[in-house]
Amino acid sequence: MASLIRLFVNKELHLGDQLELRTGQLHYLKNVMRLEVGAKFSLFNGKDGEFLGQILNLKKRSMLVDIKDQVRMQIPDSDIWLLFSPIKRSGINFIVEKATELGVAKLLPVITDYTNTDRVNTDRLNATAVEAAEQCQRLTVPNITVPQVLTEVLDKWNPARRLLVMDETLAIGGDIKGEAAKMSSLRSKQQNIPCDAILIGPEGGFSPSELAKLSKLAFVKKITLGRRLLRAETAATVALGLWNELIEIKI
Amino acid sequence: MASLIRLFVNKELHLGDQLELRTGQLHYLKNVMRLEVGAKFSLFNGKDGEFLGQILNLKKRSMLVDIKDQVRMQIPDSDIWLLFSPIKRSGINFIVEKATELGVAKLLPVITDYTNTDRVNTDRLNATAVEAAEQCQRLTVPNITVPQVLTEVLDKWNPARRLLVMDETLAIGGDIKGEAAKMSSLRSKQQNIPCDAILIGPEGGFSPSELAKLSKLAFVKKITLGRRLLRAETAATVALGLWNELIEIKI
Repeated sequence: MASLIRLFVNKELHLGDQLELRTGQLHYLKNVMRLEVGAKFSLFNGKDGEFLGQILNLKKRSMLVDIKDQVRMQIPDSDIWLLFSPIKRSGINFIVEKATELGVAKLLPVITDYTNTDRVNTDRLNATAVEAAEQCQRLTVPNITVPQVLTEVLDKWNPARRLLVMDETLAIGGDIKGEAAKMSSLRSKQQNIPCDAILIGPEGGFSPSELAKLSKLAFVKKITLGRRLLRAETAATVALGLWNELIEIKI
Repeated sequence: MASLIRLFVNKELHLGDQLELRTGQLHYLKNVMRLEVGAKFSLFNGKDGEFLGQILNLKKRSMLVDIKDQVRMQIPDSDIWLLFSPIKRSGINFIVEKATELGVAKLLPVITDYTNTDRVNTDRLNATAVEAAEQCQRLTVPNITVPQVLTEVLDKWNPARRLLVMDETLAIGGDIKGEAAKMSSLRSKQQNIPCDAILIGPEGGFSPSELAKLSKLAFVKKITLGRRLLRAETAATVALGLWNELIEIKI
């Protein structure tokens, strides 16, 4: 299929209504994509499904769009969260992009003892998530929280949600603990569990006190992805891909 | 572990021998990493394992390195290949980096009917692979072939190697064929298969004639990763991650 432009809007979408677009979205459709009156594109807002919009008129500062056919109904997303330690700019953008493609409902940047950076531009990450959702046919945009300290997140965790912890330090070749932990991998998940979260540590792994705390929590399950040492963004992508594959095969 | 510098060298490595480094590697160790006489770093060449090297002397145009302890024996890699359509620069670099981290033995850029670019800088891709291997504790560097036309690659394929084809066009929501194809997913691989290859199509999917050809080949197995539309680099990462996980759990 020749791909139609898809636009996420923070507005109600009802068949037959009209919608006004301004500023960034107007600029994108008019100046970047060169759409004219009569052109059609796709609209979604994360809750009403996806609609075909047609440009009714085009002014200097606004565009009026007719909400025509509904092309997709809203379907529930998987309820998977991703907790990750902020990393350098290209890596964090990559995590947000891939997590969006792979259906993550909520992204939680967490500050750990070995996190190198505590500057997270949440606005920029949101923009990355919107763009990725527009490009991957997703009907929602993941919720991105402000950075929080890992131990505080753990203290207020709802234990009904399992937390799958990827401790990269386990994956270093020859580590006996790693070999043992590998057995308790993602594949042991046979039940139809409604919600999960995946936690990816920073490059240096978790601190001893964090590991001690994690090992005491009943909702935590340690996982590892084989014998390889993976970068945080690779680990996140593979873990989410595996989670999806295992869940979706059951649906 | 504080990570030691790792260097891939295209030279023999034998305990007790001395090794001379020049040009790019000399510059990297001396000027970028600021190593001095007596400093230690790690060396591997893809076949002899990994050794600890110590700088014996340092001249303007060369560095002499003493090959001391062997720190790791060479272990056989998985024999998994990745065939992918060249994509834009950041994407292709990403594929090479992630494929290296995930243990791919051979990377084959293939030109398909819908491939948008046929310019592949193999030297740059090799440099990316070396850098990724140095950073991920891998003992080998994947072999990257020059770009070849997909149909020609298929014509001379050794049928003993299964080719797992990810047709992204299958993954578009609502496609009945896609839903059916999903059943024959990676997870059906129960036997201990010694070698496989994964083929990721270009953004626009495969052409009708390519699909017709692929469907006639006994060594081809179509796979898809659930209902999502993934970018080529995401699809490659997830497919390799899954393949590893399924293989390594059996080891």
